[in-house]
Amino acid sequence: MNRRMIAYMIGQVMLICGALMALPLLVSLIYRDGCWLSFAISIGLSAGIGAALVFISHPDMKTIYAKEGFIIVAISWVALSALGAFPFFISRAIPSYIDAFFETVSGFTTTGSSILTDVEALPKSMLFWRSFTHWIGGMGVIVFMMAIVPSQNNHNMHVMRAEVPGPTVGKLVPRLKDTARILYLLYVGLSVVMTIFLLAGGMDLYDALVHMFGTAGTGGFGVKADSVAGYNTYLQWVITVFMLIFGINFNLYYLVLRKHFKDALRSEEMHVFLGLWLGSTLIISFSILNTHASFGDAFTKAGFQVASIMSTSGFATENFDLWPQLARTILFMLMFVGGCAGSTGGGIKVARIVMMFKTVKREVNKLLHPRSIGVIRFEGRTVDDRTVNGVAAYAALYVLVLAITFLLLTFDTMDFETNITAAVSCFNNIGPGLGAIIGPAGSFAAYSSFSKFVLSVAMLLGRLEIYPLLIALDPATWSRSSR
Amino acid sequence: MNRRMIAYMIGQVMLICGALMALPLLVSLIYRDGCWLSFAISIGLSAGIGAALVFISHPDMKTIYAKEGFIIVAISWVALSALGAFPFFISRAIPSYIDAFFETVSGFTTTGSSILTDVEALPKSMLFWRSFTHWIGGMGVIVFMMAIVPSQNNHNMHVMRAEVPGPTVGKLVPRLKDTARILYLLYVGLSVVMTIFLLAGGMDLYDALVHMFGTAGTGGFGVKADSVAGYNTYLQWVITVFMLIFGINFNLYYLVLRKHFKDALRSEEMHVFLGLWLGSTLIISFSILNTHASFGDAFTKAGFQVASIMSTSGFATENFDLWPQLARTILFMLMFVGGCAGSTGGGIKVARIVMMFKTVKREVNKLLHPRSIGVIRFEGRTVDDRTVNGVAAYAALYVLVLAITFLLLTFDTMDFETNITAAVSCFNNIGPGLGAIIGPAGSFAAYSSFSKFVLSVAMLLGRLEIYPLLIALDPATWSRSSR
Repeated sequence: MNRRMIAYMIGQVMLICGALMALPLLVSLIYRDGCWLSFAISIGLSAGIGAALVFISHPDMKTIYAKEGFIIVAISWVALSALGAFPFFISRAIPSYIDAFFETVSGFTTTGSSILTDVEALPKSMLFWRSFTHWIGGMGVIVFMMAIVPSQNNHNMHVMRAEVPGPTVGKLVPRLKDTARILYLLYVGLSVVMTIFLLAGGMDLYDALVHMFGTAGTGGFGVKADSVAGYNTYLQWVITVFMLIFGINFNLYYLVLRKHFKDALRSEEMHVFLGLWLGSTLIISFSILNTHASFGDAFTKAGFQVASIMSTSGFATENFDLWPQLARTILFMLMFVGGCAGSTGGGIKVARIVMMFKTVKREVNKLLHPRSIGVIRFEGRTVDDRTVNGVAAYAALYVLVLAITFLLLTFDTMDFETNITAAVSCFNNIGPGLGAIIGPAGSFAAYSSFSKFVLSVAMLLGRLEIYPLLIALDPATWSRSSR
Repeated sequence: MNRRMIAYMIGQVMLICGALMALPLLVSLIYRDGCWLSFAISIGLSAGIGAALVFISHPDMKTIYAKEGFIIVAISWVALSALGAFPFFISRAIPSYIDAFFETVSGFTTTGSSILTDVEALPKSMLFWRSFTHWIGGMGVIVFMMAIVPSQNNHNMHVMRAEVPGPTVGKLVPRLKDTARILYLLYVGLSVVMTIFLLAGGMDLYDALVHMFGTAGTGGFGVKADSVAGYNTYLQWVITVFMLIFGINFNLYYLVLRKHFKDALRSEEMHVFLGLWLGSTLIISFSILNTHASFGDAFTKAGFQVASIMSTSGFATENFDLWPQLARTILFMLMFVGGCAGSTGGGIKVARIVMMFKTVKREVNKLLHPRSIGVIRFEGRTVDDRTVNGVAAYAALYVLVLAITFLLLTFDTMDFETNITAAVSCFNNIGPGLGAIIGPAGSFAAYSSFSKFVLSVAMLLGRLEIYPLLIALDPATWSRSSR
C-alpha cells in the first residue's frame, strides 16, 4: 500500500479545508459577530497539519490503486469533519465537541440533522459555515481537489469512484480532471442561478446563499427555527424545484450543455424520480387537504416536503410529523429511495431501485421459463451481471448497516419510532426523523454522546456509500502482507 | 396453459382438506362440545367442490410446467384457507367471516397471529382445528398430496418447488414422490417424539397435541390466554428445543437417518442459525436479568423467546413487549431472519442471509481487486450466479411487499410501531408484533376488515415466498397467447 500517497492526498484535503474556512471568516468580519478568531485558529490548524502531511509524506510514486482510493476518501471525510467542527467548538457556539462533530458530519454529509435546539441564537458566521459544509460535501471535496490541483495521472479515478454516489460512475470526458471540472462548473452554475431566483423573490444575500448551500448540497440546514416555513410561496417553489434539480444525475445537465436534449429527456432514472415525486405529492395533497385552505396550498406543502425528502435535503415548511399516518408513511418510505445516482442526494438512489425491480422481473421470467436468458436494460444499455450483483450486494450491506445503527441506538432511552427513523434519516442523509423528539420541530440534542457518535458514523457511511469506511476499518486492509 | 390439470390438482387438495377435517370432528365428538355439525358441513362442502373439480376437469394431459405449478400452489392455499375458515364461521366460534379467514390463513401459513381476544372461550374442537392447520401448513398440503396420491410423472417438481421454502430445492432421492414421503415421514416422526416428550412432562394428550402442532409447523397458536407461560420449565425447554429442531433444514435429518452424521453436522446454515440463537439469547438474558430471579430464569425465558421468533413460531412465556428496548429490537430484527431453508419456519431464511453476506464479501474483494473472479461457496458447494441473482431478486421483492403492506395498513388508525411490526410479523409468519395492541398480550382484533385482508395476503405471500401469488395475480399469466 502506498501510505505516502495516502498521507499526501489527505494533507491536500486539509489544506483545502483551511482555505474554504476563509469564507465564513470573511462573513464574521462583515457582520462583526466576534467569531473571526475561531475561524482563524481553525484555519491555522487545518493548514498546519495539512502542510506538514504534504511536506513529510513526499511520495515518490503517485500511483493510487482502488484500496488507497477508498482509504483516502474515508480518512479525508473523517478528518474534514473533525477539523470542520473546531470553529463551533472554539467559539463555544456548540460547547460540546461531540455535538460540534455531529453537526459538522451532518453538514458535510449533507444530512442536515441538528443538535441545536435554538438555531437562531447562533452567530451569523457560524450558521454560514454550517450551511457552507453542505455545499462542499454535496459535490465532494476530493472531486473539488481534482478539479483544481494539478495532477499528472489518471489513477485518481479510484478516488473519484469512492466519493461520487451511485452504482456506476461514468467519466463524462476522457480526462478525469476535466470531468471533475465540468461537474464543479455545473454545480457552481446551478448554484448561481438558484441564488438569483432567491434574490428575485426578496431574500437578502445572506439568506439566499445559506438556502442555496442547503439546497445545492441537498443538506437542509436552515437559519430559522421554522426552517423555510416563513418564506413566501414563490420562494418555497424555487427551493422545491431546485431540490429536484439537485436530486437529478448531473450527467444529464452535461448532455443538455452539449445540446443532446433528447438523450437527457429520455433518462429512465429521471422519469422514475419525477414520477415518484408527482405521485407521492398528489396522494399526500389529498391526505392533508382537510387541514389546508385549498388544494393549491396542500399541493405546495406536499410538493415541497416530498421534494425535500426525495432529494434528501430535509427542509420543512410544515411540521409533517403531525400529518396523517398515510402521509408520514409515504415520507418514511421515500427516505430510503433518495435521489438519482450522480446527484448530490443520498439514499439508496433511484437507479439502484429501478435495477432491483428489473432483476425481480427477470427472476419471475426465469421461474416461468427456466431456459430463458434474461437481459436487464437500463438507460438504453445492457446492464452486465457484475453491476447487477454489485447493486444486490450494496442493498444487503445497506440493510445490515441500518440494522446495526438501529440496534446501537436502543442502548439509549428513546422509543421505537424515534430510533428507527433516526437511523433511517441519518443513514440516508435526510435530516429530520419522525416523532416529537427528532421530527422537523425537534432536534437530536436529547440523544446521548454515544448515540450521536453512532449516528455520525451512519451519516458518513450513507454519504460515502459504505465501502470506503468499511475497507478503511477492515484490519486486513492494513496488514503488511496485503498489496 | 393446462387449465384442466390446474382444476384437477386443486380439486384433489380440497378433497384432502375435507378428509383432514375429520380429525377435529372426532375431537368434537369426544369432548361433546357441539361443534361436530360445523365440521360435517365443512367436510361436505370441501369434498363436494373437490370431487366436482376432479370429476369435471378430467385432464387428458398430465404435464405441469412451472407456470401451472405456481398457479396450483397459489389457488390451493387460498382455497384451503377459504374452506378451512368455515368451521369457525358456521359454529359462530368466530362470527365474522373475514376474522375466520384471517385466523385460518394465520393457521395454514403457520403465522399464529390471532384476532381472538379470549382464546380460552373457544370450544376444544375449534382450538384443535386451529392448531392442526399449523401442522398441515408447516410441511405443506401439496407435498402431502404428492406423498400419498399415486402419480405417474415427475413434473410435480414445479409444484413442490413453489411450496417448499428456500432459495433452492433439492430432491433428496431421484423420485419426487419418495422425496415427499421421506419429508413427511421425518415430519411425523419428529412430531411423535415431541408429543412423547410433552406427555412425559405432565401435559395431557390434548394439550400435548395442540402444542406439538404449533411447534412442528412453527405456528404458535396456543390454547391458553398466557400462551405457554403456565407450563413448567421442563415443558418450556422441550418446546424451545423442538422449535429449533423444526427451524432447521429437514435435509439434515435425512442425512442423519442415512448415517451421514458428519455431513449433517457440517451444515453452515445450521451453525449460523444456532449461533444466532445462542448469541441473541445471551445478550437478551443479560438485558432482562434485573427483572428475573436468576440468570437461569432469564436464560430460560430469553432462550424460549429467541427460538420462538427465529423459528417464526410466535409462542411466548412472557410479555416480551415489556422487555428493554435492546431486547425488543433484537427480537424485531430476528423476525426478518427466520428459519433455515427447507424447514417449516418462515422469514427470509438463514441460507439467503448467509449468501447475501457472502455476496457483500465478494463485492468488497472485487472493489479492491477489480480483476478478481469471486466465487461464492455455501454448504461446501459453489453457488452459481443464477442462484445469487435469485436471492438478490427475492430480497428486493421481499422489501417491496413489506413496504406495500406497511403502507396499506396506514389507512387504519394504529401507530407507526404497531403497523410496522404487524406487517413484519405477519409477512414473516411469526405471530405477535410489538406494542400493547398486537404484542404477545394483545390480538389483531382491533384492525379493520380491510387491514385484516391485507395482512392475510401478506401471510400467504410470506409462506409461499411471494412468487406463486405474484404469478397467479399477473394478468399476463392468464392471457390466451401465453404458453
